[in-house]
Amino acid sequence: MSVDFARLDRAFNPKVVAVVGDKGVTNYMWLRGQMGFKGKLYSVQVDPGEFEGIKALGIENYTSLMDIPEPVDLVIVAVPRPVAYRILEDCIRKNVAAAHFFTSGFTETDTEEGTRLGRALAERARQADFYLIGPNCMGIYNPSVGIRQTPRQKTGFKGPVGFISQSGTHAITFSEESYLQGLEINRSVSFGNGAVLESTDYLEYFARDPEIKAIGMYIEGTRNGPRFLKALKEVAAQKPVVIWKGGRTEEGGRAIASHTGSLAVPVAVWTSAVKQCGAITVYSIEELADTLTAILSLRPVYGNRMGIAGGSGGQSVAIADVFAEAGLKVPSLTQGSYDQLAQFFLLIGAGYRNPIDPGVNRREIQRIMDILEADANIDNLVLMTSVMSQFRASEQLEKEINLLLELRKRTPKPVAVVLGYNSPEAVNETRAIAVRLRDGGIPLFFSPERGARAIRNALEYHERKS
Amino acid sequence: MSVDFARLDRAFNPKVVAVVGDKGVTNYMWLRGQMGFKGKLYSVQVDPGEFEGIKALGIENYTSLMDIPEPVDLVIVAVPRPVAYRILEDCIRKNVAAAHFFTSGFTETDTEEGTRLGRALAERARQADFYLIGPNCMGIYNPSVGIRQTPRQKTGFKGPVGFISQSGTHAITFSEESYLQGLEINRSVSFGNGAVLESTDYLEYFARDPEIKAIGMYIEGTRNGPRFLKALKEVAAQKPVVIWKGGRTEEGGRAIASHTGSLAVPVAVWTSAVKQCGAITVYSIEELADTLTAILSLRPVYGNRMGIAGGSGGQSVAIADVFAEAGLKVPSLTQGSYDQLAQFFLLIGAGYRNPIDPGVNRREIQRIMDILEADANIDNLVLMTSVMSQFRASEQLEKEINLLLELRKRTPKPVAVVLGYNSPEAVNETRAIAVRLRDGGIPLFFSPERGARAIRNALEYHERKS
Repeated sequence: MSVDFARLDRAFNPKVVAVVGDKGVTNYMWLRGQMGFKGKLYSVQVDPGEFEGIKALGIENYTSLMDIPEPVDLVIVAVPRPVAYRILEDCIRKNVAAAHFFTSGFTETDTEEGTRLGRALAERARQADFYLIGPNCMGIYNPSVGIRQTPRQKTGFKGPVGFISQSGTHAITFSEESYLQGLEINRSVSFGNGAVLESTDYLEYFARDPEIKAIGMYIEGTRNGPRFLKALKEVAAQKPVVIWKGGRTEEGGRAIASHTGSLAVPVAVWTSAVKQCGAITVYSIEELADTLTAILSLRPVYGNRMGIAGGSGGQSVAIADVFAEAGLKVPSLTQGSYDQLAQFFLLIGAGYRNPIDPGVNRREIQRIMDILEADANIDNLVLMTSVMSQFRASEQLEKEINLLLELRKRTPKPVAVVLGYNSPEAVNETRAIAVRLRDGGIPLFFSPERGARAIRNALEYHERKS
Repeated sequence: MSVDFARLDRAFNPKVVAVVGDKGVTNYMWLRGQMGFKGKLYSVQVDPGEFEGIKALGIENYTSLMDIPEPVDLVIVAVPRPVAYRILEDCIRKNVAAAHFFTSGFTETDTEEGTRLGRALAERARQADFYLIGPNCMGIYNPSVGIRQTPRQKTGFKGPVGFISQSGTHAITFSEESYLQGLEINRSVSFGNGAVLESTDYLEYFARDPEIKAIGMYIEGTRNGPRFLKALKEVAAQKPVVIWKGGRTEEGGRAIASHTGSLAVPVAVWTSAVKQCGAITVYSIEELADTLTAILSLRPVYGNRMGIAGGSGGQSVAIADVFAEAGLKVPSLTQGSYDQLAQFFLLIGAGYRNPIDPGVNRREIQRIMDILEADANIDNLVLMTSVMSQFRASEQLEKEINLLLELRKRTPKPVAVVLGYNSPEAVNETRAIAVRLRDGGIPLFFSPERGARAIRNALEYHERKS
């Protein structure tokens, strides 16, 4: 079975959306989530107690999906469990492209009733060849058309990342983490139990979309391992796929059973199978975002020798340690570079071995980066900086961003930035810098550890590919 | 040699402070840093070009330290390197308790002149039995008297932590990280090259102060290893000492040489020596803050079985994985607990194996925590929550904080909180919650990974002690 691209694409880029069963007790989270939707939004709700609240949002309500006077592309279902089957029937009759069931309480409950209801729902959908997303999930996020998993998510952009998640929380957290980092989502799906469409289907769908340049996944399990691995191998040959697996330990395995009803797979088996397919394994949501950032923004990484400048003395020690511990090298520079540095570098409160702690020489950061760029011992360039500093004015940061963007244009060496101190108070400024650097092909990492892991992952990926 | 407690205490709790050589080009960073100082602040500057700027700050200037018409307890020296020796002479003559030399460019430069000047400075201080802090450092931070390493640091509190750092940046970053977490500093010192007083001296000083309940350290090297380890063993027997060592790798070792001129020690030798002394080894600034938080706030941890509630399904999987990977257990509950949970727990969109994903049962979180508290399979209680959530109102968060504070009073089991999603936009709210929890004996961690490592470290610490 291969997924019907056009049909799924209609669901992910809908023109008409209906939300069924949203209510005041959850503050109309699904209707409010779609308030920025560029198409037409309808509500379906039979409870007269909710009519007033829905009207107050300015949204037209019907008491049946069948009454909506035009075709519907995507239905978001938030009804109680016993009603889900009936709504599914309506979706099938109405010929909608897909329905996302937020409704939960099925196989994942490990109860007789839940299992029975879940099986009936899935069987009916499969028998009608209907695209059911979920159940027990947060559905679709498409920031360019304004379909969201929560009213908190940002809209109005079209990034290069497709994200496939078996957890709604991880899908939402990833969207926020990645946004701050300037890593933008094109489309994302949280698919919960994956009772009908599962990870493999979304993988095939995102693979065929040229707008999606890289795919991130959070997976707890697959119903059909061989089918998943076959698809993964094909997709990973075309575009990078980065996978975070939940349930790596015995305790995590028990947790996935009650979360999405997935079965645990021994982690060593999983990791080696995924690696053989050419995909990248990561161990946290941050590493997922960082690795995608490194692969999308950075030039392909082929060497492990890092030339690092810009941190204070203490930061230089920390970054050298964590880069080395991640398997990268921070070598001595050539004698030629040291001779050049010695000509102008004031050693007072500074040091130029590598990492280079510029201190007062920060005003010469252009010359320093140029020397690192030309150094034959160095494969990759990293600048450490900070959104706020007791020593530096914002003109200096501005100057550094500009010189890196210029440097990136003329050097074949990958260039990256690490924020030595990521001030939580400077969120908006951080995002703005991340976007400018990203547009110039330079990834921004929020700590030395995160940068080290991501660059190491990118290096392994490019080495394996070539 | 043992440090003179009274003299060092006079320097760390000064009544009169003089800043020598501060200037407009660095925006009077040292004078501005001490603007909130509760005692009397003087400037010493010979350059008439600076008189206007110093006057504008409202600070009295003298052209010599000797002219200040009263005894001075602490001198902050920011003069150029060639003048440092002369200022030291004045400090000795003036009988100040200690002088912090921000001035750098000495042995750490690995140049003949730097080494010569550095040696002369250190020898003169030692010969006069004078307490020189540094050189090449950011000096003292005492938030209760208002002495700071940067104008950014917060003042007006008196925490339980003494922090000793060979890096100024790490000292400042630690002060900001720990503040956000509600972990407050009592006194901190950045001592750079440690040419006269070194880590062992500050360790002995903080050890003898009853206000300081725990000590954190960032160390690159010590001049006298056996003396350090002997002191460490004595101090660690009285209060917890948590140490982050810089220069663990070959690359980090080279970086410390040009940072503070310290010699690298093989990491395995270091780690085992420190452990034998009863201190705790950590690998980042976050782990330092988290481990201190765990040891100071948490009840002593003696068991590794975690009872966890409050995350979503995906978060429950992630926390189970990372706690297990850190060496902790997330076991099944007793049948008695499951029977009790089954009486009221709605399994729709929720799960109660452990971790407990409460979903709609969140309103029953009190009952859930009580069941975990009484469960014989569980040694420690963890609640996952979030400052913002699409599902929860802030009344719910308030309710959860209060119930935990009550629970903590009556249970012998350690109680901790993990923020499942630490919104960078909610910094002030986060700090306020952290402080309330801390005051009730509950540590707050900013991610499952950070919580897992810290609780594991606390467990190892308490097991070793008992």
